[in-house]
Amino acid sequence: MADEAAVREQAETVRRLKQQKADPDEIAKEVAKLLEMKAQLGGDEGKHKFVLKTPKGTRDYSPKQMAIRERVFSAIISCFKRHGAEVIDTPVFELKETLTGKYGEDSKLIYDLKDQGGELLSLRYDLTVPFARYLAMNKICSIKRYHIAKVYRRDNPAMTRGRYREFYQCDFDIAGQFDPMIPDAECLKIVHEILSDLQLGDFIIKVNDRRILDGMFAVCGVPDPKFRTICSSVDKLDKMSWEEVRSEMVAEKGLCPEAAERIGEYVRLQGGLELIEQLLQDPKLSQNKLAREGLGDMKLLFEYLTLFGITGKIRFDLSLARGLDYYTGVIYEAVLLQQEGQAGEEPLGVGSVAGGGRYDGLVGMFDPKGRRVPCVGVSIGIERIFSILEQRLEASEEKIRTTETQVLVASAQKKLLEERLKLVSELWDAGIKAEVLYKKNPKLLNQLQYCEESGIPLVAIVGEQELKDGVVKLRVVATREEVNVGRESLVEEIRMRTSQP
Amino acid sequence: MADEAAVREQAETVRRLKQQKADPDEIAKEVAKLLEMKAQLGGDEGKHKFVLKTPKGTRDYSPKQMAIRERVFSAIISCFKRHGAEVIDTPVFELKETLTGKYGEDSKLIYDLKDQGGELLSLRYDLTVPFARYLAMNKICSIKRYHIAKVYRRDNPAMTRGRYREFYQCDFDIAGQFDPMIPDAECLKIVHEILSDLQLGDFIIKVNDRRILDGMFAVCGVPDPKFRTICSSVDKLDKMSWEEVRSEMVAEKGLCPEAAERIGEYVRLQGGLELIEQLLQDPKLSQNKLAREGLGDMKLLFEYLTLFGITGKIRFDLSLARGLDYYTGVIYEAVLLQQEGQAGEEPLGVGSVAGGGRYDGLVGMFDPKGRRVPCVGVSIGIERIFSILEQRLEASEEKIRTTETQVLVASAQKKLLEERLKLVSELWDAGIKAEVLYKKNPKLLNQLQYCEESGIPLVAIVGEQELKDGVVKLRVVATREEVNVGRESLVEEIRMRTSQP
Repeated sequence: MADEAAVREQAETVRRLKQQKADPDEIAKEVAKLLEMKAQLGGDEGKHKFVLKTPKGTRDYSPKQMAIRERVFSAIISCFKRHGAEVIDTPVFELKETLTGKYGEDSKLIYDLKDQGGELLSLRYDLTVPFARYLAMNKICSIKRYHIAKVYRRDNPAMTRGRYREFYQCDFDIAGQFDPMIPDAECLKIVHEILSDLQLGDFIIKVNDRRILDGMFAVCGVPDPKFRTICSSVDKLDKMSWEEVRSEMVAEKGLCPEAAERIGEYVRLQGGLELIEQLLQDPKLSQNKLAREGLGDMKLLFEYLTLFGITGKIRFDLSLARGLDYYTGVIYEAVLLQQEGQAGEEPLGVGSVAGGGRYDGLVGMFDPKGRRVPCVGVSIGIERIFSILEQRLEASEEKIRTTETQVLVASAQKKLLEERLKLVSELWDAGIKAEVLYKKNPKLLNQLQYCEESGIPLVAIVGEQELKDGVVKLRVVATREEVNVGRESLVEEIRMRTSQP
Repeated sequence: MADEAAVREQAETVRRLKQQKADPDEIAKEVAKLLEMKAQLGGDEGKHKFVLKTPKGTRDYSPKQMAIRERVFSAIISCFKRHGAEVIDTPVFELKETLTGKYGEDSKLIYDLKDQGGELLSLRYDLTVPFARYLAMNKICSIKRYHIAKVYRRDNPAMTRGRYREFYQCDFDIAGQFDPMIPDAECLKIVHEILSDLQLGDFIIKVNDRRILDGMFAVCGVPDPKFRTICSSVDKLDKMSWEEVRSEMVAEKGLCPEAAERIGEYVRLQGGLELIEQLLQDPKLSQNKLAREGLGDMKLLFEYLTLFGITGKIRFDLSLARGLDYYTGVIYEAVLLQQEGQAGEEPLGVGSVAGGGRYDGLVGMFDPKGRRVPCVGVSIGIERIFSILEQRLEASEEKIRTTETQVLVASAQKKLLEERLKLVSELWDAGIKAEVLYKKNPKLLNQLQYCEESGIPLVAIVGEQELKDGVVKLRVVATREEVNVGRESLVEEIRMRTSQP
């Protein structure tokens, strides 16, 4: 049964296809679907049926999912702190004009807020532009910071593959005027550390440089004004075949076929230091100043990465372009590789899990005097990583606890609610993580079952006799062992029995 | 100089004043201001001046502010975990219809997203309605969870007093069918623990019950359909005088003056168990079934709070109403009290820092079958607490570190960048928090100064001689003590010297 929201979605699909000048048959099919849905909705447009869901492309996190998410965050934050980063936060929305002109063709994916009077606002599309705005606004010339927060893109969601409209980015950036490629190398080291630490399987980090790309476009005969749009096409090579990309360049973007062919020769190149050396000798590329600069820095980068011992996972790849407009130098993207043994199994979220690069001009776009603050950074995409870990946990036997409760305060007899409340309050005040069932007279069996289900290791049982004797019966859930503990030493006993080894 | 955003703000002000039927003189003044601003903007409307700011009512958090914020979060999360709560997360926006009809007069403060095709969305106004939607959607009948996230209100910001349009709420809620007032009492215990733990000065937690309020309205002669709107007026008693509130009730909301007078008698009552007993004997109130139920539960609540030993800070207050529509039983609000010694000083953000109550009907509004899941919860407002701690830190001598770096890898001579990078990489791989300056040949003095500024306690210095001897010179920044450490034991040495006592 169609609802109004679905009809609106469908109408949007049709609009988009028309705009993209898609196959007329496909458009006709979607229009038919739209009309059918409208007919279904038909007369009862007034009797609006309530839809119980989260917005398209978003999701809730259950306690179990939060436990996984916090493990991932903890690994990432540890790494960022290991590299001496501070942390900042910015609002979830920015003035609309702050985001204008920063994202090229992706700008259409920005969420705007409704004009309810006052300023025009948009939800942040990434954490990089707000960071640049923050630097310019506070006149900061040098900082190393991380920022973990949700960003918003009105993209076509593919949630099973970890692509959402609301998703987390974990960004680490170094801003400041420094000697070439040292901060850039550290960003790659960080990606390497995090992906190794999370044990997601084999991965590779592709690197390239916008200057090499631009030099390549120039020597291939791409006219200057077409650089950015041709760059967008190259960026699609990870999802589309070369034939499709070439056809987009020529048919849609009006590039001459010879230039496209020449680009095709370059973008299939990938390798390491030896490829850099080869291209530095390339009769055409070596004539281009930008390309020479980019290749020189790429060589330096590989030297530093050798010192860090991580070149084994780094691949210089001329097809890497990255969509965003603001990059000016080195760019990189980490992708997980399909595990060999898994080839036949359902495809885990293989794909890009981190990306970034150098953007030396972005802060200057905000600074009233156009002052430049060179920046380089990396963004870890948590959602794909999270999907993989969630599926892995699902497949394993591991039982994940969602609370940290050390002890349940229970009673075997009736009319002991007051005593339970008194004891649990004492434990809370002593810093013990404790719970009590919210029933006047719960059965002991139910109380023990609650412990089994939620993994609480200890039960503190009060009864008439224990109260008389000034003790509490402490029961170990796993072994059913019971021991009477003097009330004054109960806190110490619980601490001892639940301290991590 | 006016900018477009300011003009729009001013236009909004005028619109609001007109809507509120404000003093015509005041409206005229604001209209004049608006016209002047438009004139200023005048001809150069095309030459749009870029505004470098965060949206109205929002702010960035600097590293130093983040350090304070994380302290506060850590205290709050510890408490929530101590009480056995799980954690969930929900999207920042919801379907617009999810929020519709939940907030009474406050609904006008909801931020809507622009209709860009697809679903109609709004930013969440609190964490309670998304929680109820989550419970209904996942058919959860019993859970104890916390949720810490930003919420959005198009309110008039008063940022120096910690009132923002984007702000954090830290919510703890207990959902499920339980025996009366046990979870409610735990919520109050949690507020008490958190406010004591944060050492914000003296505080009081006001409690009341929607059933007592409704019973009171009934016996005072308020017509049924006016209950909610009169309740909104009573809610303003913490910011407005009784005379103003009475006038709003009578002049704006059409309540008869006698009913208002009778309400006035009740809402000045506050006390403890003795007041509850007194009202249970009140000839009018005791005749009302709702009021009797509310008072009976209030008595039970006070018994449990006595067991928890916290009645000293709890005050039964008949003027407490709370604005939101969805409360059905006990309600509460914690306020910080002005410190005696501070009376003359600039007023710290005194006011409400936590609030909550019972909302037994909200989940049923979402459940297709109208199934009820009784809930009670509390929301800690971080922003005022944060303002107080920030001002306090500003006034104190305490220097707050914004990184956790243990050691800076430095060199005294030139041409040692490679050696520095190799060493810092070794330290990172061993889990040591380490930094290196991003310069090829930094001066030793600059490197030491960097440590002083950012509070890094140790410097690991490599030089030609040290490299030859297979050692590193470890310098303690505070004492200037220097010691040569064998490269193989450097990690251990750094760990030992920087471990927390």
